[in-house]
Amino acid sequence: MDHRGVGNDIESHECPGTEGGAMERNGSDVSDMREPLLLRKRTKNTTSQMAIVGANICPIESLDYEIVENDLFKQDWRSRRKVQIYQYIVLKWTLALLIGLGTGLVGFFNNLAVENIAGFKLLLTSDLMLVKRYYMAFFAFAGCNLVLAAIAAAVCAYIAPAAAGSGIPEVKAYLNGVDAHSILAPSTLFVKIIGSIFGVSAGFVLGKEGPMVHTGACIASILGQGGSRKYHLTWTWLRYFKNDRDRRDLITCGAAAGVAAAFRAPVGGVLFALEEAASWWRSSLLWRTFFTTAVVAVVLRTLIEYCQSGKCGLFGKGGLIMFDISSTVISYSTPDLLVVLILGVTGGIFGGLFNFLLNKILRVYSIINEKGAPFKILLTMGISLVTSFCAYGLPWFARCTPCPAGLKEQCPTIGRSGNFKNFQCPPGHYNDLASLFLNTNDDAIRNLFSGNTDNEFRISTLLIFFTAVYLLGLFTYGIAVPSGLFIPVILAGASYGRIFGTLLGSVSDLDAGLFALLGAASFLGGTMRMTVSVCVILLELTNDLLMLPLVMLVLLVSKTVADSFNKGVYDQIVTMKGLPYMEAHAEPYMRHLVAGDVVSGPLIIFSGVEKVGNIMHGLRLTGHHGFPVVDEPPYTDAPELCGLVLRSHLLVLLKGKKFTKERVATGVSQVSRNFGAFDFAKAGSGKGVKLEDLEIEEEDMEMYVDLHPITNTSPYTVVETMSLAKAAVLFRELGLRHLCVVPKTPGRPPVVGILTRHDFMPEHILGLFPHFKPRKWS
Amino acid sequence: MDHRGVGNDIESHECPGTEGGAMERNGSDVSDMREPLLLRKRTKNTTSQMAIVGANICPIESLDYEIVENDLFKQDWRSRRKVQIYQYIVLKWTLALLIGLGTGLVGFFNNLAVENIAGFKLLLTSDLMLVKRYYMAFFAFAGCNLVLAAIAAAVCAYIAPAAAGSGIPEVKAYLNGVDAHSILAPSTLFVKIIGSIFGVSAGFVLGKEGPMVHTGACIASILGQGGSRKYHLTWTWLRYFKNDRDRRDLITCGAAAGVAAAFRAPVGGVLFALEEAASWWRSSLLWRTFFTTAVVAVVLRTLIEYCQSGKCGLFGKGGLIMFDISSTVISYSTPDLLVVLILGVTGGIFGGLFNFLLNKILRVYSIINEKGAPFKILLTMGISLVTSFCAYGLPWFARCTPCPAGLKEQCPTIGRSGNFKNFQCPPGHYNDLASLFLNTNDDAIRNLFSGNTDNEFRISTLLIFFTAVYLLGLFTYGIAVPSGLFIPVILAGASYGRIFGTLLGSVSDLDAGLFALLGAASFLGGTMRMTVSVCVILLELTNDLLMLPLVMLVLLVSKTVADSFNKGVYDQIVTMKGLPYMEAHAEPYMRHLVAGDVVSGPLIIFSGVEKVGNIMHGLRLTGHHGFPVVDEPPYTDAPELCGLVLRSHLLVLLKGKKFTKERVATGVSQVSRNFGAFDFAKAGSGKGVKLEDLEIEEEDMEMYVDLHPITNTSPYTVVETMSLAKAAVLFRELGLRHLCVVPKTPGRPPVVGILTRHDFMPEHILGLFPHFKPRKWS
Repeated sequence: MDHRGVGNDIESHECPGTEGGAMERNGSDVSDMREPLLLRKRTKNTTSQMAIVGANICPIESLDYEIVENDLFKQDWRSRRKVQIYQYIVLKWTLALLIGLGTGLVGFFNNLAVENIAGFKLLLTSDLMLVKRYYMAFFAFAGCNLVLAAIAAAVCAYIAPAAAGSGIPEVKAYLNGVDAHSILAPSTLFVKIIGSIFGVSAGFVLGKEGPMVHTGACIASILGQGGSRKYHLTWTWLRYFKNDRDRRDLITCGAAAGVAAAFRAPVGGVLFALEEAASWWRSSLLWRTFFTTAVVAVVLRTLIEYCQSGKCGLFGKGGLIMFDISSTVISYSTPDLLVVLILGVTGGIFGGLFNFLLNKILRVYSIINEKGAPFKILLTMGISLVTSFCAYGLPWFARCTPCPAGLKEQCPTIGRSGNFKNFQCPPGHYNDLASLFLNTNDDAIRNLFSGNTDNEFRISTLLIFFTAVYLLGLFTYGIAVPSGLFIPVILAGASYGRIFGTLLGSVSDLDAGLFALLGAASFLGGTMRMTVSVCVILLELTNDLLMLPLVMLVLLVSKTVADSFNKGVYDQIVTMKGLPYMEAHAEPYMRHLVAGDVVSGPLIIFSGVEKVGNIMHGLRLTGHHGFPVVDEPPYTDAPELCGLVLRSHLLVLLKGKKFTKERVATGVSQVSRNFGAFDFAKAGSGKGVKLEDLEIEEEDMEMYVDLHPITNTSPYTVVETMSLAKAAVLFRELGLRHLCVVPKTPGRPPVVGILTRHDFMPEHILGLFPHFKPRKWS
Repeated sequence: MDHRGVGNDIESHECPGTEGGAMERNGSDVSDMREPLLLRKRTKNTTSQMAIVGANICPIESLDYEIVENDLFKQDWRSRRKVQIYQYIVLKWTLALLIGLGTGLVGFFNNLAVENIAGFKLLLTSDLMLVKRYYMAFFAFAGCNLVLAAIAAAVCAYIAPAAAGSGIPEVKAYLNGVDAHSILAPSTLFVKIIGSIFGVSAGFVLGKEGPMVHTGACIASILGQGGSRKYHLTWTWLRYFKNDRDRRDLITCGAAAGVAAAFRAPVGGVLFALEEAASWWRSSLLWRTFFTTAVVAVVLRTLIEYCQSGKCGLFGKGGLIMFDISSTVISYSTPDLLVVLILGVTGGIFGGLFNFLLNKILRVYSIINEKGAPFKILLTMGISLVTSFCAYGLPWFARCTPCPAGLKEQCPTIGRSGNFKNFQCPPGHYNDLASLFLNTNDDAIRNLFSGNTDNEFRISTLLIFFTAVYLLGLFTYGIAVPSGLFIPVILAGASYGRIFGTLLGSVSDLDAGLFALLGAASFLGGTMRMTVSVCVILLELTNDLLMLPLVMLVLLVSKTVADSFNKGVYDQIVTMKGLPYMEAHAEPYMRHLVAGDVVSGPLIIFSGVEKVGNIMHGLRLTGHHGFPVVDEPPYTDAPELCGLVLRSHLLVLLKGKKFTKERVATGVSQVSRNFGAFDFAKAGSGKGVKLEDLEIEEEDMEMYVDLHPITNTSPYTVVETMSLAKAAVLFRELGLRHLCVVPKTPGRPPVVGILTRHDFMPEHILGLFPHFKPRKWS
């Protein structure tokens, strides 16, 4: 080791030829040796927002991911550094604030619209019921539902099919590095909001929680991209956020804000983002996410307080705590704990079964949905009719119950949403099943959670409701409407918990409302497989800190039980959608393979100074997003790996059309003269330069272009004999897009292949080794 | 790329010569070429529990970190795999349960002992005060304090000096990979428990929270090592946990359990572990930590309920919620928000100032403490006297206040800890300053947080108390007693908040108790710089969910303000103690360096089959924990990097004394015949084979030993021209101990150097480039 002086040393890690075009030897015939450039066609999924591209120039941490490398725009940066750091920090927090504001407003608006539409519908029905016009009431009810459902499905099917479903799996995959098509586009946002309002209002057994997470992520993405360039709504300052990491951070904030807005649970939102959504996590992100959800809480609180004076139509009951049950005093003993354990076990089984059945049903639905938009709408309308039949028809099987004496509330409730629906009952009586079915989902949950009401709901009523909601929840999720899974699972779990509590009332002293809460927790643990975040969300929903140990216990038991059957529901959906999700741990059989085993070749390699024709050929032949750059003998003593060049940067470079006739290294100055610092920044989705945009003439094809200035000279590499499991850990932990595999022994080409996300997928590996049974390997 | 058949392929990544001793060429004179083996002496800090050693054999994820590599003990593993997986899983959860139980019990016992000792002391004082024996009361009070303080200091100074202070910085550093001397030893645990009880009882302005975190970590460490081998308290099943990752996981659980036990805050404990303690985090760890804290909560709840019938002496008030203020109804408006903002800003300034002053004071104290144990005890006793003077003397400056009318409580309180101390006042009056000073810290906080008591404390009283507590907190932390920072900060913050609230009472309608809570939050944010975890801990302490948005706001503001001055208090202490803590992000100036720049050489390299004398020489010359192994020309065509061998494994191998006369690769079978699978497992602290334990005779020195079986053949590598920032990210994210630097161009030795944690420390880098001003680089 020589300790070289600082002057020479700092910049010493560039490729030869980056500066000043010092090398002008001609080596035009060298690069032809690598023909043919044949390649196996890859699947077309545009992976990854996660590249750690380069190092070495950008002054603040977050800009580490920028394309700008190799001291390309150094002068530009140096002089303006300090201002930019402040701009960046101010912007970062401003964006977090805006995301919080936006998501909070959308969440409030969503709530407001749903409660007014659904309230109006229920009012109409109950008015008609009062005058005993049963058929008309049904037609009004089912008709409203059908129209609302059809609107939601049509909007979803024709404008943004990506908006269907929960959205949490897609956000999760995005944060893992999988950029599915148009998942965060403005049209998706629009449909998600509208579709969710109409879907929830239509009385489906679905929630607004998943869609709110997706909405938050969309808002964050659109704000981060500076609005839409299409509609000239951009802001140049936002160029700082045109990189993978900042986008990912913003979208994490957005997802957290979504949960915070849906459940009015700021801490729960942060934990949700941490536990379920994000694949990479930093402490500073924790802080920013926390800020965003705090803003959401403040916005919601302000608006709800404004509404409490009755200015928001039918909306306005309830404060920041949605299902406040804190009044119930609890003390529990050992038999209670045992009962709760059993509740957790059976809840876990039901949760696992839910996931299993959902998987089967989604596979059937996908066949129907693939036939086209009209079929999607028909399916949605069919499910809407079934739901209406259940909601209106099943209460007829319930007997009328006399109103309990000494009640503070009105009973039966007439003309508004709430408890004690009279339905077809005589005055002074109420129909308990109608109280659950003919209500908004939120009110039904509130009814189930309410304490000191052990005899309000009959066990037969609860059984009917549980069965109907469990099945409807399963059959509703796959339709072409934005639909969350939290509410169905909580509804089913709460009714299951009440049944359980009523049956074991003799053994345990716990309140039926508390059993409902514990049942909901057990179902959430069994389907979603989240622990801490669900626990905190439930805590923030119910304001019942003393229940915490019991809720924790139930969640742990039900998750453990369900984990022995299958994966969590969001993981299942990610797998089913075929998104190449990188798990946090390597599969056991990867330990028996090495990196070189799974590299699929042959590989396209570019020279440091490459012929334009070769580059065009390489870009046309493959969909690869990264290519290794190798310096070869006329320039160096032996071929050596210079670095990695990205497809998007090559396209920008080729579009600039600054080619040379001779094979010379033109160096950095050439590029920095012809391009701005942000020409190479990551474009918004669908906005980058495309191969078809290039107009390269025949004579240009024989010219040369210097790739050194846009090459990332510090790519992460592994030796070909590296254990595949360890390569996978490296790839996943650092959030890479490309990993260069270099040979172990000298004297071979300096790069053996490039590993991408797809190379680590089980299907790819098992495809390479067809005789191989994974079970035996592990 | 060839797609080789599976049969040959799976195991193809071994070094040549690992199997069956096929190579028997003699190359005895080859390895002498690398002499001399001179090396710069490194600092002696035993870094890192975090190695990702090897891959490739262990069937379950967690065992990935075992030493057992290269199919060494494959048959052994394969046959017993299934049983072992179940054993491992059962054990993992059992250990989590035991950690929870142990920490919960210790936490309860701690509380019980403190309340009884301190209660007795206060009883004595107040009895003497009643009969107006003021001097005797003072001597009794100060005498008790002095004796308790002397015991705590003596135990700490003579038995386990590592137990002094909070312990959170050390646990944080351990979880980052720095294994400071005897920080988790059984003696430390003992002193931490005893010292904390006596220290808190002695009336110091310090808390039991930091020590509880350390206690939890110690319990976890000792349980994970299977008790103490010294006292023959081991359990062979625990061999599964003899690796870095499982130890780290257990200690994370322990730290979380400590917070959960100290604050009775299970979710807060998990978040503390996540936000402050852990450097690496996995979702599965979240779950296990959560389970541990749930166990702690159940244990505490059970024991507290048992005590409520009065069986625990003076302990027994208060339930699981320590400072329940949920009764206060809150609604706040815009002026309140502004007031709260200002509170946050000034709180942040006070917090930053606290850190700054603490830093200075600790530097002075360390000079005193270094002089020896007697000086430590004297210092502690001095501070104890000052504290007693303040606690007993300052209340004389406060005027007596008549008891408020219509009070449910007793006033003045006589003969027990609580509110409204009479002190020197006539009957029907109380001394408000004595209510704060002559009380346990917990009761003082409860008094400050209590609502609807706007006029209970005079502003002059609060000012005196704030000043005294702020200064005493600063001067107490550095003494040789286990001392937490949470309680002093909360005390100072709460009194500051009350002052602030009283002063701005005209502008804001908020209750003085709520201001106290917000003030405590602002101080916590300003010193500890935690956000989400402090927020949840405060929520769980006070059961006041509606305050959440305000608390969040205050925390964010105060952290932001304080961050512009200095680092968080724990980070400061880590730096001051000289622990080589790896930050999550790379320093900006690292972008301007490459990996090769900071490698400090020359390097000791071993051959695949090495002479025993050379190994001994290498081990003696350096304290390095890892050495590269290179295969050289007689065995391969060109020198190539075989892998990395750990010092501890070399020592075990040499102790086995299975050497050969000739330079032959004896292969795996030789080692697996002579060693058991767990001989190479990570030993407990101080229990591994030491260099002095080896008895190698002169004739053995000329013999050979095959290093291939114990070489990790898949080390992570970077090219020497890799940006140092990116190498640091790789090193940190994957939790490495050694990172091999390989040359860029062929024809040079196959390894240029090894990067360790120390090479990334700013002091090392700035030492290599003395002319270099970091500020200009960034």
